[in-house]
Amino acid sequence: MSLPLLLEHLKKTAALGQVSGLISWDQETMMPQKGATQRAEQTGVMAALGHQLSSDPRIPDWIDAIDQSEISEFDKINIKEAKRSYDHATKVPEELAQTIAKASAEGQMIWAKAREASDFTMFAPALEKLVDLKRQEAQCLSDGQTNAYDALLDQFEPGAKTETLLPLLESLREPLVSLREAIAEKPKPKAFEGIYISNQQLALTTKLAEQLGYDFEAGRIDISTHPFSSGGGGDSRITTRIDESDPLNCLYSTAHEVGHALYAQGAPDPFLPAAQYCSMGIHESQSRFWENQIARSRPFAEWLYPEMKSHFPDMNIASPEEFYRAVNKVETGFIRTEADEVHYNLHVLLRFELERELVAGSLEVKDLEAEWNKRFKQYFGLEVKDVKLGVLQDVHWSVGLFGYFPTYSLGNIYSACLDKAMRKDMPNRDTKIAKGETAETLNWLRTKIHEKGKLLSAENLIQSATGEAPSAQPLIDYLNIKYSELYGL
Amino acid sequence: MSLPLLLEHLKKTAALGQVSGLISWDQETMMPQKGATQRAEQTGVMAALGHQLSSDPRIPDWIDAIDQSEISEFDKINIKEAKRSYDHATKVPEELAQTIAKASAEGQMIWAKAREASDFTMFAPALEKLVDLKRQEAQCLSDGQTNAYDALLDQFEPGAKTETLLPLLESLREPLVSLREAIAEKPKPKAFEGIYISNQQLALTTKLAEQLGYDFEAGRIDISTHPFSSGGGGDSRITTRIDESDPLNCLYSTAHEVGHALYAQGAPDPFLPAAQYCSMGIHESQSRFWENQIARSRPFAEWLYPEMKSHFPDMNIASPEEFYRAVNKVETGFIRTEADEVHYNLHVLLRFELERELVAGSLEVKDLEAEWNKRFKQYFGLEVKDVKLGVLQDVHWSVGLFGYFPTYSLGNIYSACLDKAMRKDMPNRDTKIAKGETAETLNWLRTKIHEKGKLLSAENLIQSATGEAPSAQPLIDYLNIKYSELYGL
Repeated sequence: MSLPLLLEHLKKTAALGQVSGLISWDQETMMPQKGATQRAEQTGVMAALGHQLSSDPRIPDWIDAIDQSEISEFDKINIKEAKRSYDHATKVPEELAQTIAKASAEGQMIWAKAREASDFTMFAPALEKLVDLKRQEAQCLSDGQTNAYDALLDQFEPGAKTETLLPLLESLREPLVSLREAIAEKPKPKAFEGIYISNQQLALTTKLAEQLGYDFEAGRIDISTHPFSSGGGGDSRITTRIDESDPLNCLYSTAHEVGHALYAQGAPDPFLPAAQYCSMGIHESQSRFWENQIARSRPFAEWLYPEMKSHFPDMNIASPEEFYRAVNKVETGFIRTEADEVHYNLHVLLRFELERELVAGSLEVKDLEAEWNKRFKQYFGLEVKDVKLGVLQDVHWSVGLFGYFPTYSLGNIYSACLDKAMRKDMPNRDTKIAKGETAETLNWLRTKIHEKGKLLSAENLIQSATGEAPSAQPLIDYLNIKYSELYGL
Repeated sequence: MSLPLLLEHLKKTAALGQVSGLISWDQETMMPQKGATQRAEQTGVMAALGHQLSSDPRIPDWIDAIDQSEISEFDKINIKEAKRSYDHATKVPEELAQTIAKASAEGQMIWAKAREASDFTMFAPALEKLVDLKRQEAQCLSDGQTNAYDALLDQFEPGAKTETLLPLLESLREPLVSLREAIAEKPKPKAFEGIYISNQQLALTTKLAEQLGYDFEAGRIDISTHPFSSGGGGDSRITTRIDESDPLNCLYSTAHEVGHALYAQGAPDPFLPAAQYCSMGIHESQSRFWENQIARSRPFAEWLYPEMKSHFPDMNIASPEEFYRAVNKVETGFIRTEADEVHYNLHVLLRFELERELVAGSLEVKDLEAEWNKRFKQYFGLEVKDVKLGVLQDVHWSVGLFGYFPTYSLGNIYSACLDKAMRKDMPNRDTKIAKGETAETLNWLRTKIHEKGKLLSAENLIQSATGEAPSAQPLIDYLNIKYSELYGL
């Protein structure tokens, strides 16, 4: 009797979490501005009720009473995840959890103002407080057993450890720097010029989403400042943004979020934890796969270019090939979210090392801006003149997200592993993609990734899908081949 | 100490209620169709958590510990309302509450199908069950003390009793029937012809809402099948509907919902119960006032007609006077929501008498269709040939709303009382309204109604705002004068 009770409780908890997700979606897309104060209160109440459900004292009793020898693998994972979230909810004292929630909400506001003013010192005290609080949280979560950073990382990438993650991510550095340097000396491809009106961009991006397999009966696209995906199952929504002087921003934001949403729409159950996404790294592998391996590929340009042309007859790009080159322009810049495939992981590596040092205490917040700028110069060859383009560019640390950044690079690594394996299974993929036929590609991911939910760890999931342990080599090979050809290296 | 604890709890409860309202708004406006199953689960979880908060056993303890001699009138009402909702949540056993919730959800689905099929017998068993359940609920709520119908009525119109409501509403019957009969012999005004395209309707209705004082920074307009208003305070949203062959549907739905939303936007506090709307009758008085006394008035036609003309240059209506006559056309029809001011309350009276008899047991569900048709013929002179246009037209009973219908007529009665008093206070109102200047009108309602929240009972609120006890006479006078002039009686 206690398994059904536990599952019912997990379902209830998940449904409440979905409501929290929905009001957050609404806040970014629909809410009138004077609703902000009420929304903050609503969000707080929902978080408190969610915490109450996750820390329900009946959970360990139910779990103890279950005879685990007689249940499915799926339910074993449900139990494991119930335990995991129960531990998370109970190991961190409620007062500390609330202090962190408050400091994160304040941190984000202060960060926004500091960024506006291009003044790191405005933000430093809030960040200092957050680093300290997250260190305390890590201490509680790990019972002092693991190092603090790993305890934080574990919330986003279950089971990941710095000692394995570090060499994996660091192995990207040298090849990427070489590639970047070689490309820097080559002429740049043609850039998009002119104005791309909003409603045409939205029409095109809707068509793109549909073509990639996004089910509009189980989702919708709206506009927000920062694109994101939210929800799950039959209600997996995405947002995009529109810049009338840059049609690529909207298109590739959409392709990225569609990747996330396809994963969410493909979950085998909308509520139970075992059916949800494996890890943030795997989630990101899905978004990056559709954004880069598909939507930025040469074959896909065969489908996308004529669509672009029909939506924007005055476009200054003359052929699928020119289009393919334009959407894969490599250029050193300050901003991670605008970075191309070659630079992206170098941005992540910088954040990964700095946040490890912050959490470990070997770097102090007061020295963070100088350290960022010094290393940025060293790794990217550019002088950060405005902190808005430097350490204040990302929201993550301001809301207490430490240990999140490396999952971006894991996503890139995993997506290349999947791409390599899929090409073996589907030798004619390029032919299909050139015609905009994505069903088989989606089906491969559905079977190998989406339907597995949380049944396997991220590492084992990649191993089972590809037949090989995850490594950075497929990503390095993919980038070297693609960009050597593009830039005639 | 216990008053702040109680108020904090009430705030939390209200915030949760707002979230429930928001996900229901989302369901009608934004949700993709495959989200329905998940949404039902989410709604159920939210309702259960809301019930848990309202029935928190600490509430009576907090209340008992408060020294009521030392607190404000406002907080006295907060306490009274906390007691009221606590009683409601605890007097009805949770099992019964859940059975009713389930029967209502099912009832609505069955009703929709039965209406589609024009078959009352499909719906009858579900309705029978609901009548029985609501009778049980009434029994619990009234501890067997009052009659069942009054216990149900009290949830929408606190303190209202059949014995006072009945003569008030019935006093409308004879004058309305006379008026209807007199008008029936007169020629009809010109009707709207042609097509009124969607986006122009939406642009015009947005302008109308703004002109009536609706604050778009604290709300938004969307499209839904049935127009409604939801939320409150800084986030008071409305919906409208668009029929391209009938521009009035959208316009007057908007004016109606704006009336509700102005009340919601004018609440002195977004959370505390004492600051919320007084009763459903008062709420409806606000929507009907803006819809009828303002937006359907001759002076307002001076402002609205040129706007119509500029949005629809081909419109076949030639002057403000012709417009005024067209929007006040009186015609006997089957559908309550499409009824004009003269017929509307006659529709309500029919429902009011039938639902009283159903709850009392003097009318059986199996005889309801025949009774409806018989009385409809008697009161309206029309034969109901399709039950879709008869007893299956309204959703209310299918979701267990018994005791709600009379609040519509109360709203009409109250709005005429307010109109009469306001005209005394603002002798030049017509001049202002003809220029589209509504600020003073809104301000009068803000001061006399909106800012009072729940401080007074509905009756006392009308008395305090108008200097007279509520009566049907102002409505009868208003209708007689308006329509005698319009139809040359």
